[in-house]
Amino acid sequence: MAPIKKGIIERLNSGEVVIGDGGFVVALEKRGYVKAGPWTPEATVTHPEAVRQLHREFLRAGSNVMQTFSFYSSDDKLENRGQSLQLTGVQINEAACDLAREVASEGDALVAGGVSQTPSYMSCKSEADVKAIFKKQLEVFMKKNVDFLIVEYFEHVEEAVWAVEVLKTSGKPVAATLCMGPEGDPHGVSPGECAVRLVKAGAQIVGVNCHFDPLTCVKTVKLMKEGVAKAGLKAHYMVQPLAYHTPDCNCKGFIDIPEFPFAMEPRTLTRWDMHKYAREAYDAGIRFIGGCCGFEPYHIRAVAEELAAERGMLPPASDKHGMWGAGLEMHTKPWVRARARRDYWENLLPASGRPKCPSMSTPDCWGMSRGHAELMQHKEATSDQAMKRVMELQGKVGKSKQ
Amino acid sequence: MAPIKKGIIERLNSGEVVIGDGGFVVALEKRGYVKAGPWTPEATVTHPEAVRQLHREFLRAGSNVMQTFSFYSSDDKLENRGQSLQLTGVQINEAACDLAREVASEGDALVAGGVSQTPSYMSCKSEADVKAIFKKQLEVFMKKNVDFLIVEYFEHVEEAVWAVEVLKTSGKPVAATLCMGPEGDPHGVSPGECAVRLVKAGAQIVGVNCHFDPLTCVKTVKLMKEGVAKAGLKAHYMVQPLAYHTPDCNCKGFIDIPEFPFAMEPRTLTRWDMHKYAREAYDAGIRFIGGCCGFEPYHIRAVAEELAAERGMLPPASDKHGMWGAGLEMHTKPWVRARARRDYWENLLPASGRPKCPSMSTPDCWGMSRGHAELMQHKEATSDQAMKRVMELQGKVGKSKQ
Amino acid sequence: MAPIKKGIIERLNSGEVVIGDGGFVVALEKRGYVKAGPWTPEATVTHPEAVRQLHREFLRAGSNVMQTFSFYSSDDKLENRGQSLQLTGVQINEAACDLAREVASEGDALVAGGVSQTPSYMSCKSEADVKAIFKKQLEVFMKKNVDFLIVEYFEHVEEAVWAVEVLKTSGKPVAATLCMGPEGDPHGVSPGECAVRLVKAGAQIVGVNCHFDPLTCVKTVKLMKEGVAKAGLKAHYMVQPLAYHTPDCNCKGFIDIPEFPFAMEPRTLTRWDMHKYAREAYDAGIRFIGGCCGFEPYHIRAVAEELAAERGMLPPASDKHGMWGAGLEMHTKPWVRARARRDYWENLLPASGRPKCPSMSTPDCWGMSRGHAELMQHKEATSDQAMKRVMELQGKVGKSKQ
Amino acid sequence: MAPIKKGIIERLNSGEVVIGDGGFVVALEKRGYVKAGPWTPEATVTHPEAVRQLHREFLRAGSNVMQTFSFYSSDDKLENRGQSLQLTGVQINEAACDLAREVASEGDALVAGGVSQTPSYMSCKSEADVKAIFKKQLEVFMKKNVDFLIVEYFEHVEEAVWAVEVLKTSGKPVAATLCMGPEGDPHGVSPGECAVRLVKAGAQIVGVNCHFDPLTCVKTVKLMKEGVAKAGLKAHYMVQPLAYHTPDCNCKGFIDIPEFPFAMEPRTLTRWDMHKYAREAYDAGIRFIGGCCGFEPYHIRAVAEELAAERGMLPPASDKHGMWGAGLEMHTKPWVRARARRDYWENLLPASGRPKCPSMSTPDCWGMSRGHAELMQHKEATSDQAMKRVMELQGKVGKSKQ
Repeated sequence: MAPIKKGIIERLNSGEVVIGDGGFVVALEKRGYVKAGPWTPEATVTHPEAVRQLHREFLRAGSNVMQTFSFYSSDDKLENRGQSLQLTGVQINEAACDLAREVASEGDALVAGGVSQTPSYMSCKSEADVKAIFKKQLEVFMKKNVDFLIVEYFEHVEEAVWAVEVLKTSGKPVAATLCMGPEGDPHGVSPGECAVRLVKAGAQIVGVNCHFDPLTCVKTVKLMKEGVAKAGLKAHYMVQPLAYHTPDCNCKGFIDIPEFPFAMEPRTLTRWDMHKYAREAYDAGIRFIGGCCGFEPYHIRAVAEELAAERGMLPPASDKHGMWGAGLEMHTKPWVRARARRDYWENLLPASGRPKCPSMSTPDCWGMSRGHAELMQHKEATSDQAMKRVMELQGKVGKSKQ
Repeated sequence: MAPIKKGIIERLNSGEVVIGDGGFVVALEKRGYVKAGPWTPEATVTHPEAVRQLHREFLRAGSNVMQTFSFYSSDDKLENRGQSLQLTGVQINEAACDLAREVASEGDALVAGGVSQTPSYMSCKSEADVKAIFKKQLEVFMKKNVDFLIVEYFEHVEEAVWAVEVLKTSGKPVAATLCMGPEGDPHGVSPGECAVRLVKAGAQIVGVNCHFDPLTCVKTVKLMKEGVAKAGLKAHYMVQPLAYHTPDCNCKGFIDIPEFPFAMEPRTLTRWDMHKYAREAYDAGIRFIGGCCGFEPYHIRAVAEELAAERGMLPPASDKHGMWGAGLEMHTKPWVRARARRDYWENLLPASGRPKCPSMSTPDCWGMSRGHAELMQHKEATSDQAMKRVMELQGKVGKSKQ
Repeated sequence: MAPIKKGIIERLNSGEVVIGDGGFVVALEKRGYVKAGPWTPEATVTHPEAVRQLHREFLRAGSNVMQTFSFYSSDDKLENRGQSLQLTGVQINEAACDLAREVASEGDALVAGGVSQTPSYMSCKSEADVKAIFKKQLEVFMKKNVDFLIVEYFEHVEEAVWAVEVLKTSGKPVAATLCMGPEGDPHGVSPGECAVRLVKAGAQIVGVNCHFDPLTCVKTVKLMKEGVAKAGLKAHYMVQPLAYHTPDCNCKGFIDIPEFPFAMEPRTLTRWDMHKYAREAYDAGIRFIGGCCGFEPYHIRAVAEELAAERGMLPPASDKHGMWGAGLEMHTKPWVRARARRDYWENLLPASGRPKCPSMSTPDCWGMSRGHAELMQHKEATSDQAMKRVMELQGKVGKSKQ
Repeated sequence: MAPIKKGIIERLNSGEVVIGDGGFVVALEKRGYVKAGPWTPEATVTHPEAVRQLHREFLRAGSNVMQTFSFYSSDDKLENRGQSLQLTGVQINEAACDLAREVASEGDALVAGGVSQTPSYMSCKSEADVKAIFKKQLEVFMKKNVDFLIVEYFEHVEEAVWAVEVLKTSGKPVAATLCMGPEGDPHGVSPGECAVRLVKAGAQIVGVNCHFDPLTCVKTVKLMKEGVAKAGLKAHYMVQPLAYHTPDCNCKGFIDIPEFPFAMEPRTLTRWDMHKYAREAYDAGIRFIGGCCGFEPYHIRAVAEELAAERGMLPPASDKHGMWGAGLEMHTKPWVRARARRDYWENLLPASGRPKCPSMSTPDCWGMSRGHAELMQHKEATSDQAMKRVMELQGKVGKSKQ
């Protein structure tokens, strides 16, 4: 019989560093199991071995949390996406829980069930309707007895609060991360205020995930921390950023970058960038440190290696990685051996090999300034009810900035 | 009982495009199963599920060839590398054959057993000694009945010829690829002459793999083709390049680039770069088209998608990929939907997001110009007998250019 | 007898666009008449033909203001700089006035006498001492009867106010420009507050010059305008920015950029960048629009060409320049002729031809964070009393930000 | 009475380094006196003070040769260009000679009369017709008694040979520079063969000018030297390259670069790049070292400073320039003082400040591959007889490469 594992809140309360996992949708898209655009996780049913393997790689890399691969797997999202097998959210999510549990039991990891933002909210459905969707997902997580819950990838704090309220009813610990930068949510609610609302709704861990590069995300969580402290509240903090450099993105994040999602390669962080990220997050007092889109297992391993002293251990996959490139000492060529040292990698400014490409792009989005006319030229836009909501919300942003 | 598959030479003779797989050592290093520096494939024994999964992803992506994961698994190499389990080449290679066969039988793929260059050659061992190493590896491939053999990743044509001579004794088809660019091997033997020697030794398929970017590799194979034609010989051609942009590398390839091997991310090719590569290779008359270091499953899928009309089919993993980004038509944001078209991705010059980094590096190597003095400062260099051979050969290169 | 010209204030009151000149010290450094480091204008005496010629080029380019080449020509600065001829400020400034007047009389331009910040202020001399320096310069300007006065290139608003107070006693119109960005002066005084203080001291025209790129300067003048409006005051506005792209500079401007002053070439603005600048400045309500370091005559001509419709004329030198490259219609090669159009140049993203260089630098300065230890290693630093002042002021900045 | 100066051949025979001047058309275009497109030198008549001043600046910078500003001033070119004053070649060239002589007499410089390629050659006029044009220009040079003659900026060696043959009749020393790179002239005549033909025609000094960056030009002159040596001939060598980095240009040089001529700023060489150029040229045995388009006086000064030891003197303008930035020792800020050293500037990789721009461009030209169709869309092309010649010659190039 397996020993009972320490829960997520116990770990954080005792000052442990908890390492999250990386971005499943992007990693599995490159492996051939997720379709960009819909980004839905049917693979838990159709290709469980691929999902299991990715969980295992993150476990080896040092992850203490196996998030169920249930991103965008609410029924309202799945219906929209026209996937041929007609899998239901229940089927996908049950399989996701089983896979996460199977691998978590192979090491010191907990299972976290996750819900993400819904098309129903974007289409102006009622609070009751939206909450019903989260409830349905929660039922699966309770049946499968996950260790805790994560409200993840929400742009609007209002919808995230609704999700926390639903998940809180379970009695399980709830974490909540918004996909926002320092400028806050589309309604102009600041990160500090967002965090306060989430904590008041019952989230014990708050933070951000996706949409921005690591240092921007850490900065945003710091603003959350300040807000929570100022409100006299208490919370734990988590961060799961992109593994991409996006200094040129606007307040809406990497979606608007012209390279998203099929030409992000030149922006990918190296393992050495991850050392800086891990240190920065740790120094900011964040103790649940993971990744989102673009994070591959070796990125998570680098986080674990940077924090090896603090955690008192190296991850299993470090058996295949010398700290700061030490493995190169066995390389055939002496000038490659000479790279087996920290200052070499820490100071290297890596070339892109792309002399005809710029180093920054201009975000590509349709704000109010480009007007409805342009929008109307795209038929898809008008055929989709969600679009109205997007434009309406963008209108609010525009107004809130005046 | 499985139908008997068409052999590699039959396929090429009938004009089929054969799609290779991608680079196992680099992909598995990022997944946590291979150590950079030694680059040896113990994972076939220690983590077979990880190797199997990567084979499956390439099969789904369109690969017709499952190469046994036996890179650098000759006993002389393994001994050097001090791996703790004391696995022998026989153990590793047998496991590699079983994994490749298992996955190949799940689709239309052949199994290719591979040998690569040896430390014995670099240490000036005799032809007989070096050939004995290849013979030992061949015994495993014969026992496991692979479909054909690949002599792969050889810098020196002399050693590659020895390998072909050994493998030829099996009666199986033999392919041979050198890791060289248009300037030829370290002794100054031109690609055309190298190809002629390999064909005369018995290789039915010749080409290049690794060390250079796709277009440089295609250019090199063209030179091989010209040499073979001029000699009145016949062969099939193959190419398995890097998935990195390396316009700045010297004649020795990407090893000397300062970013090798831990900061190559900004150089990684996009799937759209792969379309150009596949077309270029096809137009050059190359019909065995695959990849090496840096190739992930989605890169191979892009090769298969570019050549879908020629091959009369899409690969299985295209069920998770709209041609030219078509899947984005289902994206929530209209300006991302507007990216669902060929000319958008074909003309995009992707930014690196790294404004403090250059676009090209200066290769970092110790040629004669920097002298023995510097070399002697590195104790590792002198303790390794292979070094003498490196320096001796470099001396020859220097002389051959005068 | 020459007709009496309209004064600077009359012009601005009537809504005219007044075009300034470019940066004499940098232009004459490249021509061989000014030494980088001291940056003093002895050339007015030693090489008057060179100074006269540069005035003429700016006049032809459209400048309505000939600034006397009297930058850094206060006696306290000249003494410091160890110039061999032992020229006094009076000699240099008288010659500067004569040259400016001679060329101004050849066209529709006014003569502006200028004073700039002093080492005396940096060495903590008293208000009386510092004012005495400005008074001595003013005497020359009065004797030579310049048309108006410019307080230019002041980092500290306090010193600029002292200068305005002195120059105001002349009865001539006084303009005042600080070398600051949106973050204000080294004491943390905001641009708006700086402008208010200058207007209250008697400046009729306020703005910024040098230290930052055009768009940053325009942004800073906008902040000044807002401050003045909020205070219920009135003023005219001017801007004379760098002709360099400096997106990477810190709050202290281009001095700290590693390329300053001898490797700024890749940052130099094109004439087309100047069109954007001129339009931006005009749209911000600025009506005295000129340039500083890096501006060559063709840059000023581009400003005049962009505003040709508003000004009702083209500058004389446009006889040697087709609008938007029209002169290329006479080029021999047809593909160069095809560049003779606005949208070609407006949308071109010019390459640097330097693939091993980055696009941004890290400013190089010694703040408090690098500490006294490092500072002490440089003997020059301690031998110079001014250093104490620099460090003291930086200390204040640090504090004011906490 | 002025002492008789040592002639150009005497200087070169005695091993002296002769320093040339910089590019007048580009420098005077930026100053407002030359129109881009026609590029003709009417300014010698209309604005002699501007031309005289530029000569003076180059003299101060170290130039030993004042080239008459007679570029493109053959009557057939001037007629084409529709300049309003109807100045003749004789008028322009006489003024050019007087200005060059006036300034040359102020220092140790010689006057060189120059002829450049003609539209008549491009329009297929006969050898006699083309030679008549050069003869007419030569008459002015003889009347004004220049010290020697330069055949400069010829693309086709055939036309250059004709020019040498004409100028040789004068008895004056003749130098000849082609605007070509290592690939030779448009007919595929190699640099070595071109040099041989020029020497045989009577040129005592041969080399290249314009069209390519310094290191490419030095490389091309080396090829000329090898050709001349192999033919058992003797000559002196000169080089006058661009002051632009153009690693991305094709065999036709910088004209085809998209940034030509109005957005070349980011490519401009720094003074430190000039040190490398001067050393490279000197080490290649070239002893007449100057510049062409983009060279400003400070670039020539840098050449003179690099070769100060070899020449035994610094140029006059070095009184305003500390070697390797030494003048910065007098800068106010200590971190700028720290830049007053050779290794700082020699190793700096200057940033462009343009993160949205690439580092290399794709040359923009209409070769045969883009076809006549595209060409025909541009009416100018067909209306110009010279175009036929261009296309015909390009056709030949295409063929010569097959």
